[in-house]
Amino acid sequence: MTHPPDPDLLSLNTATVREKWNLRQMIEGCARHRIRGISPWRDKLAEMGVKEAARAVRGNGLTVTGLCRGGMFPAADRKARKAAIDDNRRAIDDAAALEARCLVLVVGGLPPGSKDLPGARAMVRDGIGEVLDHARSAGVPLAIEPLHPMYCADRACVNTLAQALDLCDELDRNGSGALGVAVDAYHVWWDPLLKTQIERAGEKRLLAFHICDWLVPTTDLLTDRGMMGDGVIDLPLMRTWMEEAGYRGFHEVEILSSGNWWRRDPDEVLVTCRMRHQTAC
Amino acid sequence: MTHPPDPDLLSLNTATVREKWNLRQMIEGCARHRIRGISPWRDKLAEMGVKEAARAVRGNGLTVTGLCRGGMFPAADRKARKAAIDDNRRAIDDAAALEARCLVLVVGGLPPGSKDLPGARAMVRDGIGEVLDHARSAGVPLAIEPLHPMYCADRACVNTLAQALDLCDELDRNGSGALGVAVDAYHVWWDPLLKTQIERAGEKRLLAFHICDWLVPTTDLLTDRGMMGDGVIDLPLMRTWMEEAGYRGFHEVEILSSGNWWRRDPDEVLVTCRMRHQTAC
Repeated sequence: MTHPPDPDLLSLNTATVREKWNLRQMIEGCARHRIRGISPWRDKLAEMGVKEAARAVRGNGLTVTGLCRGGMFPAADRKARKAAIDDNRRAIDDAAALEARCLVLVVGGLPPGSKDLPGARAMVRDGIGEVLDHARSAGVPLAIEPLHPMYCADRACVNTLAQALDLCDELDRNGSGALGVAVDAYHVWWDPLLKTQIERAGEKRLLAFHICDWLVPTTDLLTDRGMMGDGVIDLPLMRTWMEEAGYRGFHEVEILSSGNWWRRDPDEVLVTCRMRHQTAC
Repeated sequence: MTHPPDPDLLSLNTATVREKWNLRQMIEGCARHRIRGISPWRDKLAEMGVKEAARAVRGNGLTVTGLCRGGMFPAADRKARKAAIDDNRRAIDDAAALEARCLVLVVGGLPPGSKDLPGARAMVRDGIGEVLDHARSAGVPLAIEPLHPMYCADRACVNTLAQALDLCDELDRNGSGALGVAVDAYHVWWDPLLKTQIERAGEKRLLAFHICDWLVPTTDLLTDRGMMGDGVIDLPLMRTWMEEAGYRGFHEVEILSSGNWWRRDPDEVLVTCRMRHQTAC
């Protein structure tokens, strides 16, 4: 049996309570529940203002384990691709202001009307390549998050850890740590190559670890994710693999759940996260 | 631009019209619409009776491009695993009686209550290993169908072509043709390794090619599949890869669609299949 994780490594991805709280409430909620990490989404960040958010995060002694999100590179025309690049540069600046451990990249799917998957993947590679120097200068590592293959068309055409690491090899050959991956249990738990690819990534490229659970049955492709322990993912085993590969970072709870957790009192959700982190992760 | 496919290579997976027709109606429907291949499911086959079905199939000059389905090997206890093996042997006999080109294996997911994915995958390997000799004797190739990763928990824990081909390498080392794969566009279109793994499979192991389309958005994990041309899969490209690898078999339309195609008049569905086979595949 695996030992329970260090409770100080729990982080809240704010999508988990996004329906009822603004970012200030999230920050104060984390402090109240002794959750030491937080990962804000940019819509909530913009609403609060980056400076104010950075002040509140620091004031409460929180670590920003990631900023969600950059990416969304593929687009139908040059102008839209350029706009995506500019937006990623702004996201990098925001992440720097928050001293975030990484900017999470959800890379984007097929442009509207397109069936050209290799083309979309090339746009992703080129897009990351274009913003990587800016990220390096800002001291913000970019974390490519492979999404579950069911999001290939509309959210992210990087769908396995192997594919994400191939991009890292191509764009950051010497493994500087400027480019790595976010490993989200929900997206990668099914992958027969998961263990070997976590090993391949190694400490330098394992930039984030997101947790939740896969429910059976799953009734919605996007917003029916489960609380840790309520589904079929062997989270302790996956954490062991991460730790064996050298990962020492946070365990970030990200649960999109329109039918269940989003409806509950966020304080109850945070209590449950803390408890399940100890019993099911 | 790819040439349209040979219309005589169209096959009907009967799941496409399962809500309104029995197997006799499906067989007669194929004949009426000059669809030369058919792939029945076992529930409909049992209802009609195997001998009677074999007679009707032959009488209408149809090729059985596959029998759906064997598999479902992982189970909670020894007795249930044994029952699965016995059921697969019966499926092989039925496939032989129909002179089916293959028995499609949907291998099964996690046993109830289990989170042991490597264990389930081992049960799949062992299960296929146990029935392979029987399949050889009966002259029925077994086609492992990797299912989309979103079915990993409850339907099939073989989720990529590479993983299926690793099983083929392990269990049928000399590539006799007794064990191969069914390539279903819906399940594998997202895979960054798709082209290389189709090449790797080669003529001997490419036993079936299933087609439909991935809709954006997809509203149900199981029964919201699209008619060819209505989604984002580049089917002509995938067919080209199959043909370049030596595949000369049928193109089997399998559309699970509770909200759309299952509600329509099956004759209309078959007309649409024939047309889209020429314009979108």
